[in-house]
Amino acid sequence: MVHAPHDGNPASRPVTRSADWWSVNSPIRVTVWGENFHENVEHDREGMAQRYPEGMHGAIAAGLTNLLGAAVDVRTATRDQPAHGLTPEVLNTTDVLTWWGHARHHEVDDAIVDQVYERVLGGMGLLVLHSGHFSKIFKKLMGTTCSLAWRNSADTELVWNVSPAHPITQGVPHPIVIEEQEMYGEFFDIPEPDELVFLSTFSGGEVFRSGCCWRRGKGKIFYFSPGDQEYPVYHHPDIQRVLANGVQWASPLPAADFAPPGVVSEPAPLLSGQLEGSAQPSGKESAA
Amino acid sequence: MVHAPHDGNPASRPVTRSADWWSVNSPIRVTVWGENFHENVEHDREGMAQRYPEGMHGAIAAGLTNLLGAAVDVRTATRDQPAHGLTPEVLNTTDVLTWWGHARHHEVDDAIVDQVYERVLGGMGLLVLHSGHFSKIFKKLMGTTCSLAWRNSADTELVWNVSPAHPITQGVPHPIVIEEQEMYGEFFDIPEPDELVFLSTFSGGEVFRSGCCWRRGKGKIFYFSPGDQEYPVYHHPDIQRVLANGVQWASPLPAADFAPPGVVSEPAPLLSGQLEGSAQPSGKESAA
Amino acid sequence: MVHAPHDGNPASRPVTRSADWWSVNSPIRVTVWGENFHENVEHDREGMAQRYPEGMHGAIAAGLTNLLGAAVDVRTATRDQPAHGLTPEVLNTTDVLTWWGHARHHEVDDAIVDQVYERVLGGMGLLVLHSGHFSKIFKKLMGTTCSLAWRNSADTELVWNVSPAHPITQGVPHPIVIEEQEMYGEFFDIPEPDELVFLSTFSGGEVFRSGCCWRRGKGKIFYFSPGDQEYPVYHHPDIQRVLANGVQWASPLPAADFAPPGVVSEPAPLLSGQLEGSAQPSGKESAA
Amino acid sequence: MVHAPHDGNPASRPVTRSADWWSVNSPIRVTVWGENFHENVEHDREGMAQRYPEGMHGAIAAGLTNLLGAAVDVRTATRDQPAHGLTPEVLNTTDVLTWWGHARHHEVDDAIVDQVYERVLGGMGLLVLHSGHFSKIFKKLMGTTCSLAWRNSADTELVWNVSPAHPITQGVPHPIVIEEQEMYGEFFDIPEPDELVFLSTFSGGEVFRSGCCWRRGKGKIFYFSPGDQEYPVYHHPDIQRVLANGVQWASPLPAADFAPPGVVSEPAPLLSGQLEGSAQPSGKESAA
Repeated sequence: MVHAPHDGNPASRPVTRSADWWSVNSPIRVTVWGENFHENVEHDREGMAQRYPEGMHGAIAAGLTNLLGAAVDVRTATRDQPAHGLTPEVLNTTDVLTWWGHARHHEVDDAIVDQVYERVLGGMGLLVLHSGHFSKIFKKLMGTTCSLAWRNSADTELVWNVSPAHPITQGVPHPIVIEEQEMYGEFFDIPEPDELVFLSTFSGGEVFRSGCCWRRGKGKIFYFSPGDQEYPVYHHPDIQRVLANGVQWASPLPAADFAPPGVVSEPAPLLSGQLEGSAQPSGKESAA
Repeated sequence: MVHAPHDGNPASRPVTRSADWWSVNSPIRVTVWGENFHENVEHDREGMAQRYPEGMHGAIAAGLTNLLGAAVDVRTATRDQPAHGLTPEVLNTTDVLTWWGHARHHEVDDAIVDQVYERVLGGMGLLVLHSGHFSKIFKKLMGTTCSLAWRNSADTELVWNVSPAHPITQGVPHPIVIEEQEMYGEFFDIPEPDELVFLSTFSGGEVFRSGCCWRRGKGKIFYFSPGDQEYPVYHHPDIQRVLANGVQWASPLPAADFAPPGVVSEPAPLLSGQLEGSAQPSGKESAA
Repeated sequence: MVHAPHDGNPASRPVTRSADWWSVNSPIRVTVWGENFHENVEHDREGMAQRYPEGMHGAIAAGLTNLLGAAVDVRTATRDQPAHGLTPEVLNTTDVLTWWGHARHHEVDDAIVDQVYERVLGGMGLLVLHSGHFSKIFKKLMGTTCSLAWRNSADTELVWNVSPAHPITQGVPHPIVIEEQEMYGEFFDIPEPDELVFLSTFSGGEVFRSGCCWRRGKGKIFYFSPGDQEYPVYHHPDIQRVLANGVQWASPLPAADFAPPGVVSEPAPLLSGQLEGSAQPSGKESAA
Repeated sequence: MVHAPHDGNPASRPVTRSADWWSVNSPIRVTVWGENFHENVEHDREGMAQRYPEGMHGAIAAGLTNLLGAAVDVRTATRDQPAHGLTPEVLNTTDVLTWWGHARHHEVDDAIVDQVYERVLGGMGLLVLHSGHFSKIFKKLMGTTCSLAWRNSADTELVWNVSPAHPITQGVPHPIVIEEQEMYGEFFDIPEPDELVFLSTFSGGEVFRSGCCWRRGKGKIFYFSPGDQEYPVYHHPDIQRVLANGVQWASPLPAADFAPPGVVSEPAPLLSGQLEGSAQPSGKESAA
């Protein structure tokens, strides 16, 4: 019997072995997405301009570039641009996407969300930040409400490392101290993380699973909660380090093809197995 | 400072302790949902009538009733009924929903899917069966493509128990033998299960994670792959036993209120913590 | 070919199906183990007698009996008894064992630890309490150092529920408030829990994974950290409720045989599979 | 209040940030450990000399060197050497240890096992191969019996990839085809893997979780089952590729200090939290 050729799905197609599948040839292409709303709305504009003169996305991008240098190639994209800045050209050349949104989740076009979703399942890394927990893309990937408890009263937040050998937790103190931050607390309605890396406590006594990793399709997702727009958290060197670590952790393997897993139909059997005639006392009894 | 009352969310509201939160007072209310397409379409009708004279949903329901007796209260619902048989009255009185669909996933109304989704996150158990892997509700809860490999060539399927003390795997042989079944193979694009309970092999040599458990919100989900419409699998006593076990495992706690987790806003702090003045050498250095 | 009979291992032996494998016929047999050291040593005796006139094990046992009534059959065993109170007769009739120890872990006989270990892998539930994190049995089951951070300064501990539909978290407020307790903090060197159910925060700002579940062999393990000997924590009604829930969660299935998984040698094949002659372009290339 | 200096434990000590904590400066130092028994015992010697003229450890080491070149520095160590070849000098300069043993597990000195265990918890990677599932070091790290089913009848083994974006599964076909191998089957008594990467099927119909990852302490463990001494599996290019991937995946971070997590005693509080006076309706009610 001839073995039917597999279809085009890379998950099942026999992989061509090469000496360099593992090697890194080029910088990680990072797109920092920002909602860019608080930066422009009247009641927030002044404070944002003081805290984030280049926008929150600008501060996040600068932190990555400063820490990772030639290992990354960073650009920004914002909601108010055509296609929210996430054209096919941009998405198709993005290895890791970071997502900060808050007040305008509902204005993000479902079609763009679907394209981001496809790209993540195909291998693009995704960092979801703070209030991005309620973004369409995060809820779609999690399959839960992603709701939580919160209070904005300038709590001190301590970020504790519960995975000391994890790449994302390297190079920061235990705990990271953030003098003032919005409180995010449990219950956080997420699927149990594949890897839990940070837990935050607050001066009000609350707790939050603030650093969580998941694998979905071929992609890796890191949620990290510090970063409310009312506090200058993205200038905090430890927070910048965690984001830089997260980008490196979430970056796809060099051999990534960014095709989401697909249906593989009707390959021929590899084995010609038949049930042994007298082999199944229990099977006999139980078969329909 | 007066502690502000918590809002209405049951996840955070102080629970009233009672002696009987655990006790079971009533049968598990099960709704067996069937696509009811192959049963009626011309090219399948005759074969289906032989294998499943009461429909696949009828066979599944009968198996549950036979095995669980007074411990369950079973009814069926089908796609061709108003609201696909899943009216608010039905959903609101369902503890565990089983879902079999195949050829008409796209015809299921998104609004109904959303209501099922809310109910699952609120605590309703969900059993997703065989080709239900591509149902809207399963994909929405998983956040992945749920794609897989397949071949319909009457393979023998062996269902192996990899969690011998799990309630779902009790009372069946190791392996369960299904003489003829469609092959479902890896890569199965799902989030890593919270508990993996069955692995299937096929006479063609393939493998499949055929019994998988997840927790989402307050609900429990069990995917079980045996059960193609072209084979009388739901009459197989071991398969019936697994489904009966699954219904019991997925059933909500007696105290379930079926409210999905929600946002809890602005509770007052429980503690009056302040950062110790000289306590943070690393914090000083790192705080923005 | 004749199918050779399986050996005596219950994990692989075809299971005899019966109608009542699930039914509960009898109370859960609980043995509450206590180190019984602080109760008797000179510098602690007086305080212990005030907080725990019946010993810590006595208080734990009383809480279980009060809350669970006829659903449990509770006895105690202590380190200073022959075989530490864990004779084969006791272990062989124990469904769930609770373990509190602190200052005399090293005096517990390795042979007894091995017997407890076998019983857990065979299906007995185990609750490990507070300083029991350093007990021989816990370290043997975890395979890690089980070390942690600590400070005894009468911190307030808040115990937060991160799994609101988990049986162990039912019937208690969110959070549980313990006015004074020893602080246990991260990093807690444990394998990532199969289910994380409670997180504790402390007035000093620390965090701890205070309620963790694992499955090992056929047994279930619950670690719960509140309960230092210097505070009357085991009289706290919410803590008592958690322990009662834990006993119910960890109790073995009615059909449990308490045999740990064992090697199964040389069953005959179930299928007569052969590699398809021309089926393996990749195999041909890759086979040695 | 002065913040007391943390003790010497690296898990909690504020980490000195440096620009190069991530950078790799040197090859991965791999020690390939072999039991070296079948190579020398009379009834196996001739066949082993044909299949593995340099010993199984020699073949494994050669495969790693051939595939990874200057990225690794590979040496071998065997049971019959002093300290089983695992002197402090060797262990202290090993980043990743591979372990193959079968017939002489019981002859491995417990003191050496303890040293390997400490090194793994401190960050050394460990690859456990085939019959190494019953080694002292693997059982000590797993906390279970590690028992399984087996049959030596030259089955064909197919190794399926269930984690297509995992570094360990790169560069090999799906499935890997091993024409003849010993069968290892379920139930495999292990803790549920942190990441499941390969599943094997056999021509006899069995299934096995053949590629499993765990994190323990700061170390990473990969178990990979193909590789019985009676078949030339370690010459198979795909198996060699998996081992090379596994070594890279398990290698410690450049900043690793190889100190296992330890107890951290009495740091001063970071926050000066006090319970809010009127804040606890539920706490009041529930406190002892």
